[in-house]
Amino acid sequence: METFKYSDLSKGDITHLVQRNVDPANEIRALVENVIEQVKQHGDSALLNYAEQFDKVELTKLYLNKAELEELASAVSEDQQEALQTAYANIYKFHKAQLKQEDKVETMPGVTCWRELRAIEKVGLYIPGGTAVLPSTFLMLGIPARIAGCNEIVVCSPPQKNGKVNAFIAYVALMLGIDKVYLVGGSQAVAAMAYGTESITKVDKIFGPGNQFVTKAKTIIQSTTTTAIDMPAGPSEVLVIADNTAKPAYVAADLLAQAEHGVDSQSILVCTSETIVQQTLAEVEKQLAVLPRAEIAKQAIDNSYVIITQNLDEAMDFSNQYAPEHLILATTNWQQLTAKIINAGSVFLGNLTPESAGDYASGTNHTLPTSSYARAYSGVSVDSFVKKITFQYLTEEGIQNIGPSVEILAEMEGLHAHRNAVTVRMNNK
Amino acid sequence: METFKYSDLSKGDITHLVQRNVDPANEIRALVENVIEQVKQHGDSALLNYAEQFDKVELTKLYLNKAELEELASAVSEDQQEALQTAYANIYKFHKAQLKQEDKVETMPGVTCWRELRAIEKVGLYIPGGTAVLPSTFLMLGIPARIAGCNEIVVCSPPQKNGKVNAFIAYVALMLGIDKVYLVGGSQAVAAMAYGTESITKVDKIFGPGNQFVTKAKTIIQSTTTTAIDMPAGPSEVLVIADNTAKPAYVAADLLAQAEHGVDSQSILVCTSETIVQQTLAEVEKQLAVLPRAEIAKQAIDNSYVIITQNLDEAMDFSNQYAPEHLILATTNWQQLTAKIINAGSVFLGNLTPESAGDYASGTNHTLPTSSYARAYSGVSVDSFVKKITFQYLTEEGIQNIGPSVEILAEMEGLHAHRNAVTVRMNNK
Repeated sequence: METFKYSDLSKGDITHLVQRNVDPANEIRALVENVIEQVKQHGDSALLNYAEQFDKVELTKLYLNKAELEELASAVSEDQQEALQTAYANIYKFHKAQLKQEDKVETMPGVTCWRELRAIEKVGLYIPGGTAVLPSTFLMLGIPARIAGCNEIVVCSPPQKNGKVNAFIAYVALMLGIDKVYLVGGSQAVAAMAYGTESITKVDKIFGPGNQFVTKAKTIIQSTTTTAIDMPAGPSEVLVIADNTAKPAYVAADLLAQAEHGVDSQSILVCTSETIVQQTLAEVEKQLAVLPRAEIAKQAIDNSYVIITQNLDEAMDFSNQYAPEHLILATTNWQQLTAKIINAGSVFLGNLTPESAGDYASGTNHTLPTSSYARAYSGVSVDSFVKKITFQYLTEEGIQNIGPSVEILAEMEGLHAHRNAVTVRMNNK
Repeated sequence: METFKYSDLSKGDITHLVQRNVDPANEIRALVENVIEQVKQHGDSALLNYAEQFDKVELTKLYLNKAELEELASAVSEDQQEALQTAYANIYKFHKAQLKQEDKVETMPGVTCWRELRAIEKVGLYIPGGTAVLPSTFLMLGIPARIAGCNEIVVCSPPQKNGKVNAFIAYVALMLGIDKVYLVGGSQAVAAMAYGTESITKVDKIFGPGNQFVTKAKTIIQSTTTTAIDMPAGPSEVLVIADNTAKPAYVAADLLAQAEHGVDSQSILVCTSETIVQQTLAEVEKQLAVLPRAEIAKQAIDNSYVIITQNLDEAMDFSNQYAPEHLILATTNWQQLTAKIINAGSVFLGNLTPESAGDYASGTNHTLPTSSYARAYSGVSVDSFVKKITFQYLTEEGIQNIGPSVEILAEMEGLHAHRNAVTVRMNNK
């Protein structure tokens, strides 16, 4: 990991360091557009063809039903079931608290306004398969969808070579009360959920991470259809702010946990202590040696860097410019720092709170804005699965109170019919 | 307006009727991409050139300062000032109530999670000028930005032929405490706020309606940069549900208020009473005759339609499929209908609540999802100007409680470094 002194960096250096490539896959655009067009035109038969072509499996039908999911799920051990249930319970508890009805506001006498939540009716969840099977992602998307009360939850996951999904995915589906999983992956899954096919319902919003083809399909869908997406996605990343109260072994473990995701993951250490940096880098080497995914993690670590700052304020300053997906405050004095956080997806406080806890089971969502999107986007929550509809009600007193102002404002904008809609009501008591 | 009986319509007919064209401007993509590229490369000088080319004005500088805004604002009459202040007060009151801190949740002993709001640091507001000058839009975007606490609010509005902005825009800027308005319009304004120029700050999120060039620029920016946008935008629309308690003169006025926006506006009437339909259509003719924007409104009305249903449930059913930006319930029995609303942007309840009230001054936001985007998107609110960052804190008890589950889950996903980040903390008490 290359090491920089914060005080040595120019504004341009920092801009360069915090830059991530947000549109790396433009060369695959034509390919993905073609897949979308094929699915739009040929529906299920295109999906069956792509399963053969991309997933190397000849499917006889496009989904697993409840009985098939139950059979697969029976392979999940008791320990694993308990772990999934703990994660479920914590995620459920934290997300359930997000569902709040709001009070009515009387903005002036006789004029009452409020917002009501409504679940998005039809949502699509994309659960990656292939090399990384992520039952945790399924929990992170399925639980808030259930809490919101979405009417229809369509789940797509790429088929394994045996034409099935992993046992954990099957188990989570049943936990969520979902009794059908579509064996569709990649950009074809996104296209199927956006346009609908003979067997797959067209949805209103698509959620879930994926490879560059999935991501590109989501951004194309977002700009060409009315189907929304959760957020743009890039490689995962962590930024650890550490001072001399940090534990090098813990910090190293956190950096490596991020690094094992993929060679394009970023693990940034921002530290006020050169000693802690040296000890941490030594720990990274030590822990890396015994990791099964060492080759991936090593490449990611080599592409990452360390910033040494004079104090925690400077560290926070850099972090806000980086806008990390995950921010770990590896310091006993985290309480004085939280108010200074401006841009981050999810924050892990103190030396005993690893990112892994939030990745799986603390209760927070792990679907988070990467690539500095945390400047403007929040992570997935129950909010992502609902709309907030505004309502207003005017009494006779209300229309008389507000009417004159509306008449003048409509006139100012040259919109006479807008004015008239108020005038007819004021005059026809 | 063409009239259909709901019971005569097939599922395909309904799909056709509720369809809006969401990507009408694809042929302008290359043009807009070129403008974006020019602004990206040449900054301010590109903006000055476009002002000459598109706005037909030779600017000596790109913005109006506080003194210039004050001079322009002095032309606003006392009545107009009062009307703007009433609107400001109501919008402020309703939006202020949206800003709520949330409680902490202890998901299991020693594991505490919560969300904190943070304002998006830098936001860009696009305020249309030219034929439609919309000070109300400026209020609808500026007030929630101020309530959220955005650090920097960049405002772009196209220059008039005299190189200035309209007096109302200037007045609203000063109301909002904004002392600089950039004289930049169209897709070049979106590009300037997304990439930054010598004088214009690069922002994290861009808000505001605009013509097809502005809209196209926003969707391109959204998919190629980390700058977010408020929502996709299409022509404005209203759907009025009326029964035999509706007042034809009011309904007609509401349909026309929408129709005067533009020839592509839609004004849909869904009604349980043929008599009310006939009376409303007669009223439309009558009111249309005296409207200054009659030519525009007539074309929009001709492109709109009426659906006759057997009851209000059918009417609501159609409305939810249409997913209107504005929904007016022109019935005295609106209380029994609100729970059945699934898809809508903003709802106007009863015979005395015109859409104009919400367009200007009731307090709700008028920046709303059009084109059936209301299926998945909410209108602009304070939420649109903040991120919700998740936090988690584990005590020694917490890591021991949650640790075993995280270890098993990480193992299930084959992520050993994730497991290790927990293990080192559990073992090193």
